[in-house]
Amino acid sequence: MAMAMMPVVAFAQVEYVNPMIGTDGMGHTFPGACVPMGIVQLSPDTDTIPHNVNGVYQHDVYKYCAGYQHSDSTIVGFSHTHMSGTGHSDLGDILVMPTTGELRLNPGTSANPDGGYRSRFSHATEKSMPGYYEVMLDDYGVKARLTATPRVGVHSYTFPADKDGRIIVDLNHGIYNYDGKTLWAAMRVENDTLITGYRITNGWARTNYTYFAMSLSKPIRNYGYVDREKSNYMGGWRKFPIERNFPEMGGRKVAAYFEFDMADDPELVVKVALSGTGTDGAMRNLLAEAAGKDFDAIAADASGSWNKNLASIRVEGTPDQKAMFYTSYYHTLINPSVYMDVDGRYRGLDQNIHHAEGFDNYTIFSLWDTYRAEHPLLMLLYPRQATHMAQSMLAHQRQSVHGLLPVWSHMANDNWCMSGYHAVSVLSDALVKGAEIDPKEALDAMVATSNVPYFDGIGSYVNLGYVPLDRNGTAASTTLEYAYDDWAIYRAALKAGDDETAEKYRKRAMNYRNVFDMSTGFARPRYSDGSFKEKFDVMQTSGEGFIEGNSWNFSFHVPHDVAGLMDIMGGDRKFVARLDSLFDMHLPPECYADNEDVTEDCLIGGYVHGNEPSHHIPYLYAWTSQPWKTQYWVREIMNRMYRNHIRGLSGNDDCGQMSAWYIFTAMGFYPVCPGTDQYVLGAPYMPYMSVSLPNGKTLEIKAPGVSDKNRYVRSVRLNGKPYDKLYITHDDIMAGGVIEFQMASSPAKKRGLKSDQKPYSLSKIS
Amino acid sequence: MAMAMMPVVAFAQVEYVNPMIGTDGMGHTFPGACVPMGIVQLSPDTDTIPHNVNGVYQHDVYKYCAGYQHSDSTIVGFSHTHMSGTGHSDLGDILVMPTTGELRLNPGTSANPDGGYRSRFSHATEKSMPGYYEVMLDDYGVKARLTATPRVGVHSYTFPADKDGRIIVDLNHGIYNYDGKTLWAAMRVENDTLITGYRITNGWARTNYTYFAMSLSKPIRNYGYVDREKSNYMGGWRKFPIERNFPEMGGRKVAAYFEFDMADDPELVVKVALSGTGTDGAMRNLLAEAAGKDFDAIAADASGSWNKNLASIRVEGTPDQKAMFYTSYYHTLINPSVYMDVDGRYRGLDQNIHHAEGFDNYTIFSLWDTYRAEHPLLMLLYPRQATHMAQSMLAHQRQSVHGLLPVWSHMANDNWCMSGYHAVSVLSDALVKGAEIDPKEALDAMVATSNVPYFDGIGSYVNLGYVPLDRNGTAASTTLEYAYDDWAIYRAALKAGDDETAEKYRKRAMNYRNVFDMSTGFARPRYSDGSFKEKFDVMQTSGEGFIEGNSWNFSFHVPHDVAGLMDIMGGDRKFVARLDSLFDMHLPPECYADNEDVTEDCLIGGYVHGNEPSHHIPYLYAWTSQPWKTQYWVREIMNRMYRNHIRGLSGNDDCGQMSAWYIFTAMGFYPVCPGTDQYVLGAPYMPYMSVSLPNGKTLEIKAPGVSDKNRYVRSVRLNGKPYDKLYITHDDIMAGGVIEFQMASSPAKKRGLKSDQKPYSLSKIS
Repeated sequence: MAMAMMPVVAFAQVEYVNPMIGTDGMGHTFPGACVPMGIVQLSPDTDTIPHNVNGVYQHDVYKYCAGYQHSDSTIVGFSHTHMSGTGHSDLGDILVMPTTGELRLNPGTSANPDGGYRSRFSHATEKSMPGYYEVMLDDYGVKARLTATPRVGVHSYTFPADKDGRIIVDLNHGIYNYDGKTLWAAMRVENDTLITGYRITNGWARTNYTYFAMSLSKPIRNYGYVDREKSNYMGGWRKFPIERNFPEMGGRKVAAYFEFDMADDPELVVKVALSGTGTDGAMRNLLAEAAGKDFDAIAADASGSWNKNLASIRVEGTPDQKAMFYTSYYHTLINPSVYMDVDGRYRGLDQNIHHAEGFDNYTIFSLWDTYRAEHPLLMLLYPRQATHMAQSMLAHQRQSVHGLLPVWSHMANDNWCMSGYHAVSVLSDALVKGAEIDPKEALDAMVATSNVPYFDGIGSYVNLGYVPLDRNGTAASTTLEYAYDDWAIYRAALKAGDDETAEKYRKRAMNYRNVFDMSTGFARPRYSDGSFKEKFDVMQTSGEGFIEGNSWNFSFHVPHDVAGLMDIMGGDRKFVARLDSLFDMHLPPECYADNEDVTEDCLIGGYVHGNEPSHHIPYLYAWTSQPWKTQYWVREIMNRMYRNHIRGLSGNDDCGQMSAWYIFTAMGFYPVCPGTDQYVLGAPYMPYMSVSLPNGKTLEIKAPGVSDKNRYVRSVRLNGKPYDKLYITHDDIMAGGVIEFQMASSPAKKRGLKSDQKPYSLSKIS
Repeated sequence: MAMAMMPVVAFAQVEYVNPMIGTDGMGHTFPGACVPMGIVQLSPDTDTIPHNVNGVYQHDVYKYCAGYQHSDSTIVGFSHTHMSGTGHSDLGDILVMPTTGELRLNPGTSANPDGGYRSRFSHATEKSMPGYYEVMLDDYGVKARLTATPRVGVHSYTFPADKDGRIIVDLNHGIYNYDGKTLWAAMRVENDTLITGYRITNGWARTNYTYFAMSLSKPIRNYGYVDREKSNYMGGWRKFPIERNFPEMGGRKVAAYFEFDMADDPELVVKVALSGTGTDGAMRNLLAEAAGKDFDAIAADASGSWNKNLASIRVEGTPDQKAMFYTSYYHTLINPSVYMDVDGRYRGLDQNIHHAEGFDNYTIFSLWDTYRAEHPLLMLLYPRQATHMAQSMLAHQRQSVHGLLPVWSHMANDNWCMSGYHAVSVLSDALVKGAEIDPKEALDAMVATSNVPYFDGIGSYVNLGYVPLDRNGTAASTTLEYAYDDWAIYRAALKAGDDETAEKYRKRAMNYRNVFDMSTGFARPRYSDGSFKEKFDVMQTSGEGFIEGNSWNFSFHVPHDVAGLMDIMGGDRKFVARLDSLFDMHLPPECYADNEDVTEDCLIGGYVHGNEPSHHIPYLYAWTSQPWKTQYWVREIMNRMYRNHIRGLSGNDDCGQMSAWYIFTAMGFYPVCPGTDQYVLGAPYMPYMSVSLPNGKTLEIKAPGVSDKNRYVRSVRLNGKPYDKLYITHDDIMAGGVIEFQMASSPAKKRGLKSDQKPYSLSKIS
């Protein structure tokens, strides 16, 4: 029935997308409705494990980063904000749930759903596709359909013929919730078909202001609320009958209900516009994006919007390959998200309301993850939006009291999760690839960021040339990350024509050497006195000075100077052996038992694809005497780590990074070192791909006959001419044309061995 | 020393003002620094009794409505917002306290001041005058001086020569505080001489957003903070050394310290600008009002601003009379307060940021008190500001989800304290007196307000003609108040040319009759079935259906139809006898034991001057055969209820209402029924007064020889011509000229007995 209501579109790339991929296990994706880079992700939440109970961290909260786990059998309700694939989370703002029968204002538990407003459901009734989700809520017999615009979530609830309709609006519900997270919530019933309100939460975003305006297709007949805390000061409010039909509600734990007469028409449509600036901003967003449009028209627009984006790449492949490809592409276009009213007003990091001049303001920057491939992919395919993201980061830096570019930021806050100051990579890459941002302004922001002495060991790093372990538990990996970031600043300084700064940061970029134990060729944390950590296990993920990774993997994290790294590791032969053994080794479970982001599912040998630090490693063979091994391993990873299945993602999708890796690798190249204009060649995953470039040109990628057997690249032709380099440049791609890979079942071992065929490295290959 | 720094002003009316009047006991005034109608009232808080402890109301919190009780011996610190003379309160935002020696970040207790940052002080070191306050903080040897602009509080702290300087900024401190009242507080150290921040409180104002920008005359050397709650989610913040020299602080119970090197100069000047819109608004206010000006220049401006206003009335009288007069005038000009940034942006009742178009937005409307004389006084002497206040009320109504005009509103909230919808009185009075507001728009707002069925019994009132006791514990007084308010709407409808609405509200204005027991002539609450409360005590203040008053007093609350009331009470003779006995009777203490607003100090017989419902009663003799008795009693009240003494106010000043009564009565007339253009004559209190009217004209009020003995008015001449009415009109006053009262030691009993000499009454005098 829903399919019948969906629009017929000329090119049905959306039909290949399976948003359910990654909704079970570690993917942390959500199945609900959103549009590309919209701030609304309207999706079912299947549980609400609190972040802590009496101060004790609840391990299961990690499962619910996206609010949904496929193995659950109940739906709590539909909330409007979700992150896609993160390993920590927040949000789940403004939960709406249709119910009938006895009024319940608490969510209940999965063990006893009848004790609350949640409902049982069956996956058989779920339909999930880009911009659309539907499910039957079995406890109430309510069919729920969801769609979205960039700033508005739209619900259609069809109630059973014999029942009146009711919706619950729970402003205390949230993802990674904890007791007291909601600092304040309020609602106003402006008239019988319009509700406004907001809540302020103190979560991963320190203070997140979510305003909303909710329009209803039928007049409210009756309503009321509870404040589960009731500790707030009431004063003169006591003189009102505040709990029933009183149009102003407030408290720290507010859950409201609204009842409707459904006799004439069993469908209730609820449109919920969000804003970070005020209920007036939410009203403007509601009027601009959803007023006067019915559910089906909005759903058609949402689907069309996805299809327009997804159709920019056409692929040939098996149904599963296409599903995985377009779902990956879909996942790369959810976050970052626009964080700005339709009139350009947005909440800034300083919590003041700003007007975005000349750019759209974006948020949800999971930069430790996304600087690697997600941002380069957007810079390649969506340079306008990527440039606006860069401008959003610069605005963030101007508004930061620390003068810091974003680290992990969302909703006008930075939570500084993970390490590095990788926004400099995004900015540098954007500059190198021609984004219209001011190089001098960007450079100033980068330099300021990289010199905040109290931020995560920078002071020591500047003084000592490394972050010492006595200062920082992830000292070694942080040093490696800073060194790469400093190289990115060096590149930006060159672009800005600032030679002095360039030289300074070129030197800082070599700081990675300071955390290598030259006797073993492994990165190893050092103390302030210069000594290395004594008891040291290169296999162990936890407690050895690296973040979410072991030294074995992290030692390869010198993307800007692979040649220098090869020297440290003992030259080509030993480097290749090290790479080989990474994929071949057995990593004992006790080496990653304490880490949520490394699981057996995401391992190939000791290589961890489920988490980001390893993502570039398979491509490092390009610098060696055996570049063909990249072709072997990337296909192996594609086959084993990505499957068209609810459990098909081997790790958190991390706001598109896992998926962007897939897209690039499927294309046959990967941005190993953002900040260069080079993409290192692997091998295409599918026989044909056509990429509509943002400049109007088209790039065709041909790999006829490619298969698991024919996974090796015998030769490459670019626009018909033999191409013998191991990388292609951004300009090569943007010029359009045809790259043709001749595939074979055995590698061309002599290909790409000359130094001028090798990708960029800060040091010369010795 | 401070006097030497104060400016020499041409007319030193400010020197008569004694802000200490009312700071002991029931006055609830504050001694700190402010300018006329400014939003900043920078004043010492001597204690911080919590509003409740474990949910139990703490009686003493009432003493600290203004944060200061003269009998206390310690000062906790200086906070920036205070209400003047209220009987309930809030605010005390952004406390600053200079300290030296051991760091303490909790306030300590009056019993053990050494346990916290508070300091002992002596009244001998206090100087308090309009716009200026100083005190020596004995525990630290710090001399504190305070002054203000409309939006900026300015502190000067002179530290002992051998000590370093420190200030505490406690964002959890507050008046009428309770555990959890601060929903969130945050601070940013923007640079070493600038701090911004805000707090959101859930108090009497449901959500009060106070943003600030604080500039410092010396660079911060060192700083830090505690969050006493520490229950908030920290996330990535843990990677910073957040407690020391980290420029971003936040939490629900934040207290910070900032340390300074005082070697070169012992004085630290701190300028704190407030805003309700954002820290950017606070910055704009800081720059516009205080940048580039030193403490003494700002103090001189503050003093000059007060003097300019106070000098609009010149009086002759004893020093104590002048002190009382100018202090009263001072107190009438503190609240309402401007609630708007210098650029016109302000937070509205809907919590959105609005721009005031064509008016200044004001807040702190204690309307149950101030509609009586405070607003009429402002309409007479400050019609521009009074008109803006009316416009602010109309904006409030537009932003109200209930469509309600303000009841008791402050800082973008309504707390709906007390009863009535008396904003209609203010608007009607303003319309009648020529304020430039749209009569139709005002009428619509009034009509909407008076028909909100769920507000405080209005639904029943509209249906039954009275508020029933089963609906509302103060049903009788609320009915009396609504009836008067409805009369005010009737007057506005006439002004708007809407005869139909006028007639409707003329009828509603007669509803007061529905709560009179005609057999006794006393107001008496009724139940929904029409029956009167059976067991009924006309003397008892509590539990008899009246708010903060007994039936004896409240039965006179028919200011719009005194003639009708006289009929109910049995005609002229019985009405006079009733008035006489009110002043002569003995009111047993058990009749007011349960009421904080009625105390022995504020009684004359059974007449309660310390609370508002009685304020017009002494003037009601004007409608009777014995109008001269007003002249006796008003002087008696002036002498006994107002004294140039810390305990000189017999009751809460209530945002200027007690003081406005004083000013009008001293002039010789009083607005018994706002909404008429009439002021009922009493007798001047002092022999000469010159009032500079806002239209440039001057009114002289002469009463040569007036004294306690010569308190009676023998005759009146207006501009030289005999004047035999018992009232004068607004136009009479605004025309300027001379009113001369011939005073005598015995009353002119035949004066003003004719019906055309009587003030307005809705019914004709029978």
